[in-house]
Amino acid sequence: MTLSADPAAIDRPACVAFDAEDPLAWCRDRFTIPEGVIYLDGNSLGALPAAAPARLRQVVEQEWGMDLIRAWNRRGWLESSIRVGARIGRLVGAREGEVVVCDSTSVNLFKLIIAGLRLRPGRHVILSEPGNFPSDLYVASGAAELMGAELRLVEAARLPAALDQEVALLCLTHVDYRSGRIHDMAGLTQAAHAAGALALWDLSHTAGAMPCDLAGSQVDLAVGCGYKYLNGGPGAPAYAFVAQPLWSRLQQPVTGWLGHARPFDFDLDYQPADGPRRLISGTPPVLSMLALEVGVDTFEGVDLAQLRRKSKALTELFLRLAGQRLAGHGFQVACPADAEQRGSQVSFAHPNGYSIMQALISRGVIGDFRAPDLLRFGVAPLYTRYVDVYDAVSALADIMASGEWRDPRFQVRATVT
Amino acid sequence: MTLSADPAAIDRPACVAFDAEDPLAWCRDRFTIPEGVIYLDGNSLGALPAAAPARLRQVVEQEWGMDLIRAWNRRGWLESSIRVGARIGRLVGAREGEVVVCDSTSVNLFKLIIAGLRLRPGRHVILSEPGNFPSDLYVASGAAELMGAELRLVEAARLPAALDQEVALLCLTHVDYRSGRIHDMAGLTQAAHAAGALALWDLSHTAGAMPCDLAGSQVDLAVGCGYKYLNGGPGAPAYAFVAQPLWSRLQQPVTGWLGHARPFDFDLDYQPADGPRRLISGTPPVLSMLALEVGVDTFEGVDLAQLRRKSKALTELFLRLAGQRLAGHGFQVACPADAEQRGSQVSFAHPNGYSIMQALISRGVIGDFRAPDLLRFGVAPLYTRYVDVYDAVSALADIMASGEWRDPRFQVRATVT
Repeated sequence: MTLSADPAAIDRPACVAFDAEDPLAWCRDRFTIPEGVIYLDGNSLGALPAAAPARLRQVVEQEWGMDLIRAWNRRGWLESSIRVGARIGRLVGAREGEVVVCDSTSVNLFKLIIAGLRLRPGRHVILSEPGNFPSDLYVASGAAELMGAELRLVEAARLPAALDQEVALLCLTHVDYRSGRIHDMAGLTQAAHAAGALALWDLSHTAGAMPCDLAGSQVDLAVGCGYKYLNGGPGAPAYAFVAQPLWSRLQQPVTGWLGHARPFDFDLDYQPADGPRRLISGTPPVLSMLALEVGVDTFEGVDLAQLRRKSKALTELFLRLAGQRLAGHGFQVACPADAEQRGSQVSFAHPNGYSIMQALISRGVIGDFRAPDLLRFGVAPLYTRYVDVYDAVSALADIMASGEWRDPRFQVRATVT
Repeated sequence: MTLSADPAAIDRPACVAFDAEDPLAWCRDRFTIPEGVIYLDGNSLGALPAAAPARLRQVVEQEWGMDLIRAWNRRGWLESSIRVGARIGRLVGAREGEVVVCDSTSVNLFKLIIAGLRLRPGRHVILSEPGNFPSDLYVASGAAELMGAELRLVEAARLPAALDQEVALLCLTHVDYRSGRIHDMAGLTQAAHAAGALALWDLSHTAGAMPCDLAGSQVDLAVGCGYKYLNGGPGAPAYAFVAQPLWSRLQQPVTGWLGHARPFDFDLDYQPADGPRRLISGTPPVLSMLALEVGVDTFEGVDLAQLRRKSKALTELFLRLAGQRLAGHGFQVACPADAEQRGSQVSFAHPNGYSIMQALISRGVIGDFRAPDLLRFGVAPLYTRYVDVYDAVSALADIMASGEWRDPRFQVRATVT
């Protein structure tokens, strides 16, 4: 889709007015956003919760420093995987005791793919699509190789037809990391079940960005990351969801001590704990875990339906302003035009995308770039303002009008996350 | 071995004098130890490095808060697994580029066991001993089940004889978590090689407590934890070692994006990175990772041979004082009498061990208890003083003489890590 100017122009005062009326405006105070920065990359790393520095100081200086080993019980470190998991569970529509926090998204995905294949003996296919997050495909292919299974990729539109009786697991990411397109979670899960397969969803761009109804959608397995919209800090541990009826039969492969029914008995034989604890392997990274808890705190008292309304309004505004201000500069809209099908981001393809994004970042407007040509702008409804969107599009328009992006310093490729 | 009084009694002033002469006494200033606490549990959770609070404040407030996503490059987060790994490598006698920091010990052990089995096709046995850390056995049994392999346990003394041509991997923990007994790493590795097997060592109670010569011992694979003697903070990420000749053939199962040769190309096919990077799966927990780096800093400029001499002197002193002060109270020495064969801890068996340890902890002398009857006291030569050992044994003698441990509040079992 190419951009075209919208007849009813929106100006900056209008955006200031939207912020004044925003029922979630108060949430921005829960974050520390640097002066002069418009942060549109909360889909890569969520902003710093204002409460995080004091909490981390307490964890480091008091809990680790003063309580030392005693903090595992005294300060609830031992229960943190379950406690934080329960809170994330409420953000993704899980039932009590279905979510646990541990390891990284990759490791959890690996565990659940193996466990999922074991729940469907006689079937050997993991079905996914080429637009899935590459790391999910890497993990799935590694797990498939180990299990003598096959990772089969078909275009998203052909997924329902490809659900045959060979398929053990349908593995998809709910919100596409590039386009922001939202899959029909309930529909595809139902189709998987009708074919006798299990459905495993990656919620990395879902949780904290929109409501999600794992229970209502009858999802079997899910994973997701803690450092994007959940604001858990860099490399925050990930979470894993297993639907209640499956827990007792779930056999995950990385059988470390904290997944044992009685880890401190130091028995020689492994006996899995009941419920979500059995997905834990080793000792969790406590500092990162407790930072994630502060991240999850930023959602306290927030109505997720309202969050989604604001998210849609922000991306809608971004696309309208882009239509007004960027038409004729070679941008292609790379996200769904229908807000219902769009996650909490907008994406544009542009042949000079890399340099344009570098120029934008040097002005303090931080989005990100995904090879080969994609500019991504995430909106985090807890802290992104309407006026931020306005100013970001203005900066983009300036950069295009002035040709600023042609500056040689914006051509040098560095590793970008 | 029962305790018996030593003819040459050692008094407190003698211990004060040992500290005054200790060439490593200056290292204690690198830690914050709470007032009134004698901390003898650095083998479960290392003490807080004095530099950690300021560094963590910087990481949270400046790097995460102000640099946001840009910190991955600007602040070297992306390289942290390799950078911290290289520094741990120097503490365990690895060659350049053989160690990486990622995940937990359990997850790394899982990866290396699978990778090790794949390097020895046609062999199906993982050989270990019942005294190995239970979590290592749990992980090995989980990996064995997945691979159609067998975990075979034989008593430590019978290990060399049990190395037959069915054995793919010899999996052992260098220093026993209960007794502190040190395995002959070089000898057993050589025996494994003579039988055509690979040797995989867990260094969790080794690194930071004594020198270790992975290269000289021709060890193939190793893992270890960051939160014990390395002082990396609660649940610090773990490290993994792979001998250089094996890296290019190493096929680990959890193939996440940061182990890819070019993760930011977002290719659909997984292609493993060269060298230690290929063992990485998902995004590392940055806060915990950078705390570990501060932990590793506490070894800067420390001569590991000197560290080991002090460690032996401390455990020797503990046993001598126990002989003087605790004889007749029912303690059995549960660690090797020969300091050469003893790690950086002493252990005693006592039928009332749990209550005695609780009474001791309530006096601020922190060791730990391992079911069914073991009291463990770790000495961390960077911060444990000779006078600490004296005072700990005095407290223990008081508790036994007074019967203080019989107090009902010391009988209640809580989870202890």
